[in-house]
Amino acid sequence: MTAKNESLPAVSSRRRWICFAICFGLGAVIWFSEAPEGVDPRGWRLLAVFSATILSFILRPASMATTVIIGMVILALTETLIDPAALQGQYGDTWQTKSSKESLAAVLSGYSSPICWLVAAAFLISGAVIRTGLGRRIALLLVKVLGRSAHGLAWGIGGAELILAPFVPSNTARGGGILAPIVDALCRTLGSSSVDGHRNRVSEYLILCGAHANLVTSAMFLTGMAGNVVMYGVAKEAGVEFGWGTWALGSIVPGVVSLLLLPILIGKFTRPDEIDVAAVRGEINHELKALGPMTGREKILIGVLLLLLGMWSTHGYLHHIYTATVALVGVALLLITKVERWHDMARNYGAWDTLIWLGGLMMMAGFLKEFGVIAWFAENAQTWVSGLGPLLVAVGLLLVYFFSMYGFSMLTGHITAMGGAFLTVAIASGTDPILMVALLAYFSNLCGCLTNYSTGPVVIYFGLGYVSAEKWFKIGFVVALFHLLVWLGLGLVWWRLLGWW
Amino acid sequence: MTAKNESLPAVSSRRRWICFAICFGLGAVIWFSEAPEGVDPRGWRLLAVFSATILSFILRPASMATTVIIGMVILALTETLIDPAALQGQYGDTWQTKSSKESLAAVLSGYSSPICWLVAAAFLISGAVIRTGLGRRIALLLVKVLGRSAHGLAWGIGGAELILAPFVPSNTARGGGILAPIVDALCRTLGSSSVDGHRNRVSEYLILCGAHANLVTSAMFLTGMAGNVVMYGVAKEAGVEFGWGTWALGSIVPGVVSLLLLPILIGKFTRPDEIDVAAVRGEINHELKALGPMTGREKILIGVLLLLLGMWSTHGYLHHIYTATVALVGVALLLITKVERWHDMARNYGAWDTLIWLGGLMMMAGFLKEFGVIAWFAENAQTWVSGLGPLLVAVGLLLVYFFSMYGFSMLTGHITAMGGAFLTVAIASGTDPILMVALLAYFSNLCGCLTNYSTGPVVIYFGLGYVSAEKWFKIGFVVALFHLLVWLGLGLVWWRLLGWW
Repeated sequence: MTAKNESLPAVSSRRRWICFAICFGLGAVIWFSEAPEGVDPRGWRLLAVFSATILSFILRPASMATTVIIGMVILALTETLIDPAALQGQYGDTWQTKSSKESLAAVLSGYSSPICWLVAAAFLISGAVIRTGLGRRIALLLVKVLGRSAHGLAWGIGGAELILAPFVPSNTARGGGILAPIVDALCRTLGSSSVDGHRNRVSEYLILCGAHANLVTSAMFLTGMAGNVVMYGVAKEAGVEFGWGTWALGSIVPGVVSLLLLPILIGKFTRPDEIDVAAVRGEINHELKALGPMTGREKILIGVLLLLLGMWSTHGYLHHIYTATVALVGVALLLITKVERWHDMARNYGAWDTLIWLGGLMMMAGFLKEFGVIAWFAENAQTWVSGLGPLLVAVGLLLVYFFSMYGFSMLTGHITAMGGAFLTVAIASGTDPILMVALLAYFSNLCGCLTNYSTGPVVIYFGLGYVSAEKWFKIGFVVALFHLLVWLGLGLVWWRLLGWW
Repeated sequence: MTAKNESLPAVSSRRRWICFAICFGLGAVIWFSEAPEGVDPRGWRLLAVFSATILSFILRPASMATTVIIGMVILALTETLIDPAALQGQYGDTWQTKSSKESLAAVLSGYSSPICWLVAAAFLISGAVIRTGLGRRIALLLVKVLGRSAHGLAWGIGGAELILAPFVPSNTARGGGILAPIVDALCRTLGSSSVDGHRNRVSEYLILCGAHANLVTSAMFLTGMAGNVVMYGVAKEAGVEFGWGTWALGSIVPGVVSLLLLPILIGKFTRPDEIDVAAVRGEINHELKALGPMTGREKILIGVLLLLLGMWSTHGYLHHIYTATVALVGVALLLITKVERWHDMARNYGAWDTLIWLGGLMMMAGFLKEFGVIAWFAENAQTWVSGLGPLLVAVGLLLVYFFSMYGFSMLTGHITAMGGAFLTVAIASGTDPILMVALLAYFSNLCGCLTNYSTGPVVIYFGLGYVSAEKWFKIGFVVALFHLLVWLGLGLVWWRLLGWW
């Protein structure tokens, strides 16, 4: 299944070591500088490790999990998170053994965070969606039903993204793994393949619609992109519970409008030719026939997915079962009914990869708060933005946040590096917390529209070779303006109706 | 790499559902019966889930991880581990949402247990030992150096097991994955293959020596078999810190003596023919040549393994860095030096499989103690064994524990089902806790000698087809008596010298 959550470009060995050195250097500079007043020195050292880790997400000398593990090992060895003096008093002679163990226990504390297991469970469920072929079947059926014109095909792709996004938290698995091959097959059927070098306008159109639809559906659900829970965690630390239901409720109107209008907008710039409906339908029917009739496993899976969707969206109204518990119920049901074998689940790269880096980040974020680093930053932020109106600050921050994505090749790295800090500054300036959380949460994904290297599925769609880099950037910029218009304009109206501000 | 930690026989769908029903039935009976005085009702309900989970390890309707996940989901949904009344007082209106989340957090608490991560990290390291070919190279070299006679070959196999056991916590990966193929190749070279049905005595001999050596090395190290940490956890709950160094110190003398004498003992019953040294050496040289010269990755890996071994065995003397932290240092070093890619590590079945079931078990064990279930059981145990001497109780329990392995097809299931209870009873009778821990810890693995279905590597060695079931059981029983003699006789002397009793 999903090869990697987000793509990691190969780097040369020399570049790798230089990047490592820069990250360690940044960490060392902070570590050995004096902690400002009011900040626990342990918090300052943790900030050093956290900063180096985040820089590694940007420079990418190694996978996220690798650098998070290195950071965790450093924290464990230096016993940064515990208070040795207190342990010495408590345990006497054996305190050194105790403190080493307590230090590791603190470092590992993120791995009992329910939110980590929500994402891991969602990855395990998405494995079943992919392996049973249900994801592919849903996508093909939607494209078949709606695909009576070029716009119809694009809507079909967007619709499939919308149905799958709640259950497939790897946007790469969803866009790059399930949908991109279908879009590629459609492009080939429509008489244009990347092999013969002929760039067909319908193909350009479909590829761009697929990539941008993926980013919209990633934005729409807490479980639509693995990094979204980082934003959820940051919001929670700031006192805003932006759970699955709230996240989806806020996105449903601007999200659906985006999915409906984007194909029309992109069509204006690519002007797709009229398509040969018969050829497309033949191709889709051929692919569907290859899938065979729906299996019992797929039917059970549909039942489980509907149950999850029902429970996630009625949380707080009909019941109080926590989102991650619901996801684990789904995992247990798939195992009991043998829709998925544990043997396959335990080999799910995305689940364990995400669990490892997310658990480490959650731990660091939690202790940064506990040690007063966040409060210290918020106080400073207040002086920086004092005198500026909250609206000015919020919109200014949002624009910087959005366009800074030009410098990132990973959505999650972008969120981790800037999301928490920007939220803190905005709240310090007096912006409504939930409003700023919503803006940052959604735009964290939408900003992937800017480049052809922003995130896995975009890299894969671009890599199919139908669209030139120049055109990708040009249309990306137009889509960026479109998103700012729809999500800031319509979005703010919708959130007003919801009573968020 | 390692397919499964321990083998799971395929079961029919009907048998599977009957087994599930029996487990649920047992759980329901306990759940709905009244908790005895002094036991928190929550503890009693947890005991119901725990008992059903353990029964599932014996009946095996599904993998361990599957039934542990089902147990965890039941505990999370029923909010068994938390105190809703306290939360209601604390959070007012939002208490139901809070309690669902707190319930899940309690259920997931095992996943920040350092001991779980020791095993997971050791699995990740063993992945490198296997993937780089270093494990195979070490085994071939030892067999080459020592293999000048049938006994020499057996000692070579035992020596390789001894070197690899500290780093390869999947005894299946070590015995079944690395050594069994080499032993099989030797048997074929020695003129006997399972294909032509001719059962050669040298082959019988080597197969039996390989399987029994695997069980001895599994017993010798905390990281020699995945389930050993269950015993470690049980001992810790009883106040005995039986860590990596202590475990290895207690086993080194009886373990090495077993590895030296077992080939001679097994030789008495199989009477291996004289072997053709030239043919064997040719075969081994051929296999070594196929491996090629030692790579840089293997050299770095050797350095990392020596570092781990050095740090694990000097803990408490030269430094106080916790065993699991050391293992994570190893993981980080392998990632930094690119000996292993994260991409491969994240696909390590054994690491995540073990993490999942072990974290769930650790959580259940911890709360059973917290809710007074263990204390209640210990009190009752005291009345059962009152009047019997501690020695009688200890030896009696040990014999029951050892021979009850006839009823189990998994070492870990056996430990989980009986280890904690037997330790509690023995301590209640006045047996020296550390002595009983040592006996249970080592015999938990040694008892795998009894049958041809006890654990993964035994199943694999037997499955090669060189040894009849009848002979396996017969020699298994002799080896059992040998182990009781060596580990109870010599072992007790050695542990006396160590000052354990």
